[in-house]
Amino acid sequence: MNALGKIMSPSRVLVLGFALLILFGAILLTLPQATQDGLGLSILNAAFTATSAVCVTGLVVVDTATTFTLFGQWVILFLIQVGGLGFMTFATLFAMILGKKITLKERLLLQEALNQVSVEGIVRLTKSVLLISFAFEAMGTLILTIHWYSDFGFSKALYYGFFHSISAFNNAGFDIMGNFTSLTAFVGDPVVNMTIMILFICGGLGFIVMADLLAHRKKFRLHTKIVLLVSGVLILLGTVIVLIMEFANPDTLGPLPLGTKVMAALFQSATTRTAGFNTINIAGMYDTTLLSMIVLMFIGASPGGTGGGIKTTTFIAIALSVLSTYRSDPQVVFKGRTLPRDVIQKAWAVTTSALFLVFIILSILSHTENSDLMTVFFEVTSAFGTVGLSLGITPTLSEVGKMAIILTMFIGRLGPLTLAFVLSQKKNKQAAHIKYPDERIMIG
Amino acid sequence: MNALGKIMSPSRVLVLGFALLILFGAILLTLPQATQDGLGLSILNAAFTATSAVCVTGLVVVDTATTFTLFGQWVILFLIQVGGLGFMTFATLFAMILGKKITLKERLLLQEALNQVSVEGIVRLTKSVLLISFAFEAMGTLILTIHWYSDFGFSKALYYGFFHSISAFNNAGFDIMGNFTSLTAFVGDPVVNMTIMILFICGGLGFIVMADLLAHRKKFRLHTKIVLLVSGVLILLGTVIVLIMEFANPDTLGPLPLGTKVMAALFQSATTRTAGFNTINIAGMYDTTLLSMIVLMFIGASPGGTGGGIKTTTFIAIALSVLSTYRSDPQVVFKGRTLPRDVIQKAWAVTTSALFLVFIILSILSHTENSDLMTVFFEVTSAFGTVGLSLGITPTLSEVGKMAIILTMFIGRLGPLTLAFVLSQKKNKQAAHIKYPDERIMIG
Ligand SMILES: [K+]
Ligand SMILES: [K+]
Repeated sequence: MNALGKIMSPSRVLVLGFALLILFGAILLTLPQATQDGLGLSILNAAFTATSAVCVTGLVVVDTATTFTLFGQWVILFLIQVGGLGFMTFATLFAMILGKKITLKERLLLQEALNQVSVEGIVRLTKSVLLISFAFEAMGTLILTIHWYSDFGFSKALYYGFFHSISAFNNAGFDIMGNFTSLTAFVGDPVVNMTIMILFICGGLGFIVMADLLAHRKKFRLHTKIVLLVSGVLILLGTVIVLIMEFANPDTLGPLPLGTKVMAALFQSATTRTAGFNTINIAGMYDTTLLSMIVLMFIGASPGGTGGGIKTTTFIAIALSVLSTYRSDPQVVFKGRTLPRDVIQKAWAVTTSALFLVFIILSILSHTENSDLMTVFFEVTSAFGTVGLSLGITPTLSEVGKMAIILTMFIGRLGPLTLAFVLSQKKNKQAAHIKYPDERIMIG
Repeated sequence: MNALGKIMSPSRVLVLGFALLILFGAILLTLPQATQDGLGLSILNAAFTATSAVCVTGLVVVDTATTFTLFGQWVILFLIQVGGLGFMTFATLFAMILGKKITLKERLLLQEALNQVSVEGIVRLTKSVLLISFAFEAMGTLILTIHWYSDFGFSKALYYGFFHSISAFNNAGFDIMGNFTSLTAFVGDPVVNMTIMILFICGGLGFIVMADLLAHRKKFRLHTKIVLLVSGVLILLGTVIVLIMEFANPDTLGPLPLGTKVMAALFQSATTRTAGFNTINIAGMYDTTLLSMIVLMFIGASPGGTGGGIKTTTFIAIALSVLSTYRSDPQVVFKGRTLPRDVIQKAWAVTTSALFLVFIILSILSHTENSDLMTVFFEVTSAFGTVGLSLGITPTLSEVGKMAIILTMFIGRLGPLTLAFVLSQKKNKQAAHIKYPDERIMIG
């Protein structure tokens, strides 16, 4: 727990950094050069779009393709890239380019930004992060450019490939296909489906996992094993649910041929790992499917990556903890390893804070918006998980609604615990040594 | 954790006892003598009504006043009384009446039934439970009979006073006012409001708390302090929310004079401590109010009483645990006492199991019922918390929907942990001594 005291200050720097980046982006988007009508966005819409981009959410109040100029779209791309890779990763990049020595304080910041336990090797890790990211994005751009070349011509294919590769790898969910259609035009296109999916799934696994996988060691970390297992199970489970529930739905999978049905089910399941793209109309789905998607979005991606949510590791930690309680087992064991008590505690705190946040924002929006509970619940969970899927109310949100969603995306991206640590007072060191007597209460 | 092994078998007996009582009640309600049309209830409706009565929920598929004969209503009253005071409390009563010696095994059963930590004094406690209950119910009957005498005449006033006192003290929520109106006719009647509220609030505090209060000790147990504080705060908070949100709503508080507004807000808040009566039309409330009521119903009453939900103590245990994580404090402290680690673990397990149950049943009903998410969510939470409030879909539930709600009431009444203990295999004693090495994972 000592480490926590040390990183308190880095948490504050991170929160401030993200806030300043959003402010900077919002100002740029209000410029006349940013929008095709030459008026610039309103302050609230600019703040919403900048937050959505920096927090790699992808909820949009205006259509990205038809509203923004090329300049506006590049601003959004820049915000996505900086937001996705993390403010601090970028700061280090600049520091390295300028040949500066990385101080211990900066290393601590990086540690917090990448959610790491130790400071050792943090600079090397940051370099790997950047290298891996750019390699994935370059590969995605290449494939999509070649694929779209015959239809779009070279320059449009390159730009579209570039934009959607960056958006996909960073789990941003922004698209420039026009009229809020996301990737629905490509529901039956295996190249687009596979390229985009590989990009956002890998981006969402987290850099630690990717580094562990690329290191070709004989034995993976427990963290890597858990992330791969849980991500795989969640994607598979989601695919089965979407496929079964929506199989005959005329508004979603119904009209598609069998192979496309399976691919679309897989894509719509995987996108809840907080990518935010969709290839079928989400609003056409049945309530039961939407409920499952809400849970999958709430769980989200893996820590240390470009995705949001409470994270796959948090989910498995609480699930294992509950199962150990059922079995009256004092240890929480997974694959021959015990998860330390404070890890479990942190998992509970993250989950409860997230549930509390979603409930509060849901209460606000159910008052301010003229929508049914499902539509609002889906929107709020999507914002918290920085997913970006929507049943369609984002552009027509009230002013209070937009502000509430901005706040939700911000907290969702930084993690509710980061904010709680920033806001809560540091514990009195002396008080920590007082041991109070136990007393039992009845539970449940 | 040793105690858990010993009570495993009592858990099974409790589950079986409740199931048999429901079966017995359901059979009686299918008899021609039970209903005014002389046909008896259908098997499914009889099972639903019996489960609702035994689990003191109060959700009804048929109107209690107009469907049942006096015999049918007495069957329901009997099921409420036995279900509310608990199968085992009653078994002890019979044993005592018959002059039998209470065996250790029976004491263990009682301990489980009353959610007690120790076996000592369990028979004395059971006697107090019965004494306190009958005293409250007699007092309620007396007051309501006197109050209704001039309007209803003696015998009807006595029967109505008796029925609603038993239903209120046991947090059953069944009424015989007719046409599913609950107590809406008495929204401005302070005597009915106060009598019914005192009965269900006291019944919901739990017998341990009442015994502690009646013992006139200088220092109350930690359990008592927590229950009183949390119950008070929840009722106050709910009152403020209902009053503010519904103040001008023409379908709820709008048309009422100020004093009645306050009383109705108080009643509708307190009823979520799982009583299930209502004095205003719940279906007329705004979404934001309903969301708050869903959370309050989910939290529910206090353990060892006649109410349901995850329980007030479970709620405060997880809240304190999260706050201690925010402060990086390894202990969970309340009023100078540390809550033991296994108590916190149990609280998390109860809450997570409950959330999981509500989600699964919600998914099923969102598929089988033609209702919006809010209506179904409210119904499922009401069933889990054994509350009995409804937005009105209970009578029109599909067959699968009715079966799902029956299961939810049953698990809600027994507590998700009791069922988990019954279903899960006993831990291998030897395996408990293997200590696995720690390994950290990233969270959140
Ligand atoms: K996203
Ligand atoms: K009830």
